[in-house]
Amino acid sequence: MTDAPEPEPALSDAFHVFDTTLRDGAQREGINLTVADKLTIARHLDDFGVGFIEGGWPGANPRDTEFFERARTEIDLRHAQLVAFGATRKAGVRVEDDPQVAALLASQAPVVTLVAKSHVRHVELALRTTPEENLTMVRDTVAYLRAQGRRVFLDCEHFFDGYALDPDYAKQVVRTASEAGADVVVLCDTNGGMLPAQVGAVVRTVLADTGARLGIHAQDDTGCAVANTLAAVDAGATHVQCTANGYGERVGNSNLFPVVAALELKYGRQVLPEGKLAETTRISHAIAEVVNLTPSTHQPYVGVSAFAHKAGLHASAIKVDPDLYQHIDPALVGNSMRMLVSDMAGRASIELKGKELGFDLSGDRELVGRVVERVKERELAGYTYEAADASFELLLREEAEGRPLRYFRVESWRAIVEDRPDGTHANEATVKLWAKGERLVATAEGNGPVHALDRALRVALERIYPQLAGLELVDYKVRILEGRVGTGSITRVLVSTSDGQGEWSTVGVAENVIAASWQALDDAYAFGLLRAGVEPQE
Amino acid sequence: MTDAPEPEPALSDAFHVFDTTLRDGAQREGINLTVADKLTIARHLDDFGVGFIEGGWPGANPRDTEFFERARTEIDLRHAQLVAFGATRKAGVRVEDDPQVAALLASQAPVVTLVAKSHVRHVELALRTTPEENLTMVRDTVAYLRAQGRRVFLDCEHFFDGYALDPDYAKQVVRTASEAGADVVVLCDTNGGMLPAQVGAVVRTVLADTGARLGIHAQDDTGCAVANTLAAVDAGATHVQCTANGYGERVGNSNLFPVVAALELKYGRQVLPEGKLAETTRISHAIAEVVNLTPSTHQPYVGVSAFAHKAGLHASAIKVDPDLYQHIDPALVGNSMRMLVSDMAGRASIELKGKELGFDLSGDRELVGRVVERVKERELAGYTYEAADASFELLLREEAEGRPLRYFRVESWRAIVEDRPDGTHANEATVKLWAKGERLVATAEGNGPVHALDRALRVALERIYPQLAGLELVDYKVRILEGRVGTGSITRVLVSTSDGQGEWSTVGVAENVIAASWQALDDAYAFGLLRAGVEPQE
Repeated sequence: MTDAPEPEPALSDAFHVFDTTLRDGAQREGINLTVADKLTIARHLDDFGVGFIEGGWPGANPRDTEFFERARTEIDLRHAQLVAFGATRKAGVRVEDDPQVAALLASQAPVVTLVAKSHVRHVELALRTTPEENLTMVRDTVAYLRAQGRRVFLDCEHFFDGYALDPDYAKQVVRTASEAGADVVVLCDTNGGMLPAQVGAVVRTVLADTGARLGIHAQDDTGCAVANTLAAVDAGATHVQCTANGYGERVGNSNLFPVVAALELKYGRQVLPEGKLAETTRISHAIAEVVNLTPSTHQPYVGVSAFAHKAGLHASAIKVDPDLYQHIDPALVGNSMRMLVSDMAGRASIELKGKELGFDLSGDRELVGRVVERVKERELAGYTYEAADASFELLLREEAEGRPLRYFRVESWRAIVEDRPDGTHANEATVKLWAKGERLVATAEGNGPVHALDRALRVALERIYPQLAGLELVDYKVRILEGRVGTGSITRVLVSTSDGQGEWSTVGVAENVIAASWQALDDAYAFGLLRAGVEPQE
Repeated sequence: MTDAPEPEPALSDAFHVFDTTLRDGAQREGINLTVADKLTIARHLDDFGVGFIEGGWPGANPRDTEFFERARTEIDLRHAQLVAFGATRKAGVRVEDDPQVAALLASQAPVVTLVAKSHVRHVELALRTTPEENLTMVRDTVAYLRAQGRRVFLDCEHFFDGYALDPDYAKQVVRTASEAGADVVVLCDTNGGMLPAQVGAVVRTVLADTGARLGIHAQDDTGCAVANTLAAVDAGATHVQCTANGYGERVGNSNLFPVVAALELKYGRQVLPEGKLAETTRISHAIAEVVNLTPSTHQPYVGVSAFAHKAGLHASAIKVDPDLYQHIDPALVGNSMRMLVSDMAGRASIELKGKELGFDLSGDRELVGRVVERVKERELAGYTYEAADASFELLLREEAEGRPLRYFRVESWRAIVEDRPDGTHANEATVKLWAKGERLVATAEGNGPVHALDRALRVALERIYPQLAGLELVDYKVRILEGRVGTGSITRVLVSTSDGQGEWSTVGVAENVIAASWQALDDAYAFGLLRAGVEPQE
């Protein structure tokens, strides 16, 4: 503990929650992260309180290199340390001369995870070197990075299969790494074929035989990644590698959220900073939004169905005592109980959300009821407020104050996209508005139709609301809902806006992307002007 | 073994694969089965070779009563026995007079699963009776059904929580049922809060202390249902209750497919009739279709991503030996390996992907090199081929054949979206094209700008390429890349198109969503016409 307000006190080093969403999680089919996405996810993970965030493989691709560069100035980690992933030096090359190892140092990450082979067959087939040279590669690379002041973890790829084939060699890799200065040697079930009993037995033996500090990295190919992770902890591992929502190659990785929830709630072991477990559901869904995957409705602990009750038998028992059909209080992980059918948003979560935004709603049952109704109705139409706090706050305040918090009224707008014979595109938009009794008409061009609309809006309003000049759109996401009906489906747009001090997100839903974007922009401007202290007046 | 062709030889009774998709699985949020659905699912489960199919609770609702009636004549079970689910008799009622028990007999199911309380608190709070009367209810109901010629399994609801509170009482329920003639006593983790180590320890003790034949029914609230099921088997349980695809209340039940796959492939224990394991993927997807849920892409063993490989590191190792990154041969469960083309991938994955599409590229290093270059360059620009097989195949074939495989040339197009003063939207598009030497101009309206463009394209081309009438857009996804630079960012669109026989996906990337959609449509049409055997000619 410390008196300094920042950084927050780190949890003890005795147990590591190590997240590899940005590296191994990104291998999931359908995930393609930009550097900006990676920075955002790192902020969420740090906010959740994991100890280590593996950011990628610097040098292996330009995106990961850029991530480490930008992370140094663009994220301010409070809990986590950034980890660079890389491999042991190439066979037959001096470690000082290996450009891949140099890239790890250049990333300036304080921690490095090195992947090494621990399976003799892989050493021969994939690395094309000898088992002895592989050991030297491990020793050299670990020692070199330690000498450069880095903390080093060593991932033993295919450890369990390698151990089955040649346990002595597998253990020799563990010993070599540990003796060379690796703080943790991580046993990886790379192809995910293990079951918990096997994992537990191997971890127990390797721990007894080598004395090294061990970690576990499990893949979910047998549907047992969470259980395999816990089996390793039961056997003495003190470092767990996971990914948010279990994202990862093939079936996926061990899912961070049920692992952490089990450790805190079932083992009674604090592995996150105080109070963070209750953020689990929010963080899980926020990361799903960033990677642009629908959050799994049936994910343990955090799915919207995870505490949803349908059976009549259960429902009546729950009225007697909710604990009868719930293994934990859902609030512990930031989720809530739902009785089916239907409510997507319960009173409790609206109250919690209000509280999060600084409104104490607990005394006004009638207001909460009205907000629940409006949220339900709009979520049915495709809106989502989980990732659009500002739109929710507008809805809440408009309901509480009983008046619209708007600054202009739209008469009409038009956007035109043209692909010209010379191959260039023209994007032009015209808006016709009323603000403070004045009719305003403006036309502007942009990189795309939404950009053109945004500009036209600003041109029209800049004299009346000069504060708009300080607002910048910083993120823009589109999701097509009910996608199996062709291009006539519903579109949801999420926009993030910044005024230099803070950032807020708004949502729009419509039958086409331009109209949905317009709604999200409308909310974004209204919220920005409210923040700037401008009095609403259409 | 027997000479008779039907029914097929039953597996030994020593181990039971018991499916409860139709009863407990139907509790999943979003599942609402008709009697016809239930009959179809029962046929699939029997075809898969499970030993028992729990069909529902006759008497509790008319649908389940009807299911058992119709099942007698409408399904011809080859492997499975039908099971009726019900409860022990009511407190203070003679078993002969309990209408719920009578409905179980009336169902004519040869096997009955009775649910009973084994948790003292539930006996008092939910049943409102004494622990002693609860034991008598168990004894009476089991003995009565046995006397009527039924085989009886007893589900001990909340067994693990009950055992934690009062192990003696929980074991007394097991003993009572077993002594009264229940063939199997099933320990249920009803609220799903258990972890494998706990399940194993309890099953081991109860087995030693009671000598009863034990089964396991696990829910997935900790993400460990499969592992809990296997932990019980390790501890001596010989009856596993599961649901197809893990459907069930809240998070779900123990998933039949990974449980059976683990038992057959990891334990070497035959639990399905010969050859049935290879049907796993087909049965899983077929049942998902019947319940009208999209099959989970990341489900262990059976998901389309379960054996999909993306990382370049892995891909090159897989070329050496596929077993290096696969825990089993996917064909064992009726699935197959897929290579994902992505910027993390190199030459090896392009060759493998080509092979999957029917092109042997191994002899043409130069062509592979060119394709790798083009893929890299386009992925840098934001394209992704992982989810756009058809765009990749076009790229590959255009590179291999050294000519464009296109059917028309665009002169220009224009899309207009208008928000009118009455609040309605107008979407209109005009295209100007050249095809087979003709200049074609058409205008159309749609639900959104892309829909309008799609229609205008078809109107312009329908006379020259009547095959386009058979193509339908079935899915449409939008992703904004490098989102942190405002609405001027890059947009990626993925389109899925069907011609009734097959479905293919294409990608477009541009600075605005309309232009990106246009590109994806262009590829979609080109691929569809190629498939239809039309000779490319601009």
